[in-house]
Amino acid sequence: MNAAAFKANFKKEQETAGFEGYKGVMEIIERVRTEGDAALLSYTEQFDGQSPESFKVPKERLEESYDALSYEEKEAFETIRRRIEQYQLSIKYEDKAEGEFQYVYHPLEKVGVYIPGGTALYPSSVLMTVVPAIAAGVQEIHAVTPTFESTNITFAALYACGVENVYTAGGAQAIAALAYGTESIPKVDKIVGPGNYYVALAKRLLFGQVGIDMIAGPSEILIYVDDAVHIDAIVYDIFAQAEHDANARTFLLSEDPAVIDRIAERMDALIDQQSRSSIIHQSIAHNHYRIVDSRESLISLINDVAPEHVSIQHKDAEMIISNIKYAGAVFNGYYSPEAIGDYAAGPSHVLPTDGTGRFSHGLNINDFLTSHAVISIEKDTYGTIAPPAKIIAQREGLDAHHQSLDIRME
Amino acid sequence: MNAAAFKANFKKEQETAGFEGYKGVMEIIERVRTEGDAALLSYTEQFDGQSPESFKVPKERLEESYDALSYEEKEAFETIRRRIEQYQLSIKYEDKAEGEFQYVYHPLEKVGVYIPGGTALYPSSVLMTVVPAIAAGVQEIHAVTPTFESTNITFAALYACGVENVYTAGGAQAIAALAYGTESIPKVDKIVGPGNYYVALAKRLLFGQVGIDMIAGPSEILIYVDDAVHIDAIVYDIFAQAEHDANARTFLLSEDPAVIDRIAERMDALIDQQSRSSIIHQSIAHNHYRIVDSRESLISLINDVAPEHVSIQHKDAEMIISNIKYAGAVFNGYYSPEAIGDYAAGPSHVLPTDGTGRFSHGLNINDFLTSHAVISIEKDTYGTIAPPAKIIAQREGLDAHHQSLDIRME
Repeated sequence: MNAAAFKANFKKEQETAGFEGYKGVMEIIERVRTEGDAALLSYTEQFDGQSPESFKVPKERLEESYDALSYEEKEAFETIRRRIEQYQLSIKYEDKAEGEFQYVYHPLEKVGVYIPGGTALYPSSVLMTVVPAIAAGVQEIHAVTPTFESTNITFAALYACGVENVYTAGGAQAIAALAYGTESIPKVDKIVGPGNYYVALAKRLLFGQVGIDMIAGPSEILIYVDDAVHIDAIVYDIFAQAEHDANARTFLLSEDPAVIDRIAERMDALIDQQSRSSIIHQSIAHNHYRIVDSRESLISLINDVAPEHVSIQHKDAEMIISNIKYAGAVFNGYYSPEAIGDYAAGPSHVLPTDGTGRFSHGLNINDFLTSHAVISIEKDTYGTIAPPAKIIAQREGLDAHHQSLDIRME
Repeated sequence: MNAAAFKANFKKEQETAGFEGYKGVMEIIERVRTEGDAALLSYTEQFDGQSPESFKVPKERLEESYDALSYEEKEAFETIRRRIEQYQLSIKYEDKAEGEFQYVYHPLEKVGVYIPGGTALYPSSVLMTVVPAIAAGVQEIHAVTPTFESTNITFAALYACGVENVYTAGGAQAIAALAYGTESIPKVDKIVGPGNYYVALAKRLLFGQVGIDMIAGPSEILIYVDDAVHIDAIVYDIFAQAEHDANARTFLLSEDPAVIDRIAERMDALIDQQSRSSIIHQSIAHNHYRIVDSRESLISLINDVAPEHVSIQHKDAEMIISNIKYAGAVFNGYYSPEAIGDYAAGPSHVLPTDGTGRFSHGLNINDFLTSHAVISIEKDTYGTIAPPAKIIAQREGLDAHHQSLDIRME
């Protein structure tokens, strides 16, 4: 099959269609902007069925949540926290100075982090959003989460990372609160973290009013295997992808039809033993199994669709990977299954989905920095660049620009 | 005056208020998405009063536009083009490799550039958006502009930069065309460049469907001067800011009231000699003149409002500038007036406005790259990080993740 057909497959389930839902989300944003906490409370009652006494979580509840962890769990959080921090610091941008220019980076002052709540809690999402922000040097982190149990694993993870400002609010209303500020929740400079469809709409509508990391969609993975692969390991990789949610998708590719058949057989044998087998059954309905006819078509296909996760478990991995231009993240080899990236490898698991890796990247430390140029032109340089600048200013009819340049030529 | 009061001044005219205009823009986007060129033509007739035979500009018209330039103009374009390119390459990100990670950058494949048209043409905007994209290695650049004269300076500048794909379309409809593709205009990966209110709304609504650089608002500058400053030079700097458009704003600050008075006097004396005096009269109504009482309050004020342009023409410039964290761009000293940045300094003049410098940065070469991590965990490392990963997977109830990790421990 060719890349175009594959790409059509890849996009068709996700294609943005119209602007359904926008009107409702605009109304939520407007009410939170103008009414503050009162609107936030009203929506929390309506959508979450909760009436928190105050949105801010008392520090004791964070601490109690952490204290309830086992020793091994505390150690696991700390090991992973340090590992993420170390990786993120290794890719941090540094100031540059070249001639009459400096280009300088500074950490953002106030960042809002959205942590999904509801039926399942994901402490790994806390680590994968908060640790890069702290490593960047962000002064204030404000976490919102629709998590209303008095103690819970999300609070524990936030405490483990040192986050003190946690608010029990979710959905578009929590995004609006972070964007504009309410009596309880301060206005932040940037909002990051994954959320549901309404969270995504609110982030899109508020882009530019506040910094926004990305619009995340359902998760996807492209796995490329050769005939030497450990069949059951791939089966669990596919199940791990599938158990995220009913919309998760796997694209399993190989040059060898027999491998795909063997994997499919073992999936059939093992699926009903999985604890989340009903979700897995739903999401593998969106899976795609493909034979690729050439290395070129594999690479063009990956670069065309920029999958969120690309897992290459193949003897020629190095060569293939060196040709990948667009992907959320690339997992190289047997000991880099996607699951290790979800928890502990180092790069954030908050990654661009649905082809957006063609223009955006996974959340990282540098998304918590902002930057600007300092321009310090010397008199001699000025003498060489002001004349061409004046010529263009004149053509644009901007005479005061021309005069501002001209007066310094005297 | 304190920073909070100043900040209130700074934001009040620009504050996002409601979602007026969104409905109309959504309709434009939806029609272009579903009807393609037919919708694009219908909106071009409606909003621009033009019926182009084809949207794509024939190469000959670009070439003729360039040929109509004088020798000096051609030289000016080339000098500036080279200068921008050199600066942009000096700040380009480079791949990193650290232990079991690579972090790699690749140029975007297809970029759309919006070039404003209408009554005034700005070839400098062509250079300031297109040259960084080309320097980054973008393969295809598609420029849209509501510029319908058969030859013009915008086409000349595009030709000078080597852009071959130019389309006569503007407004929200041109943004939608680039985001979704039509028969004439291909779908791109990212859209950059300044535009009017409807362009900004379309960019916001399409954020995530396509990459978007930023949402630009009216221009602003903060100028800080001491008593040794060349009064008329500052007057022209203020007029240069003011002549952009009626919403442009200047914040002139000093510790010395006498300087501000002298500048105001000279403004009165010179304003009616300016060719764009009527626009200048309108926009200086939004100017703010302030005495700052301390160096600390100056710096906190700049960092709070993150002005698009900060021009420090003061003996203590170095010290002040080293404390600026948030700004669109900083202009240091007498020979770095903002006008030189508009045309020829090197950094793009497409800069974050209205406080958005607190979380975003001026357009540059790196906005035309995307990046991803390659994760190549070795067996030994795996042995140390898989156990904590498994503990968290278990707490999240993601058993297939746990098994995907576990099977590789054998």
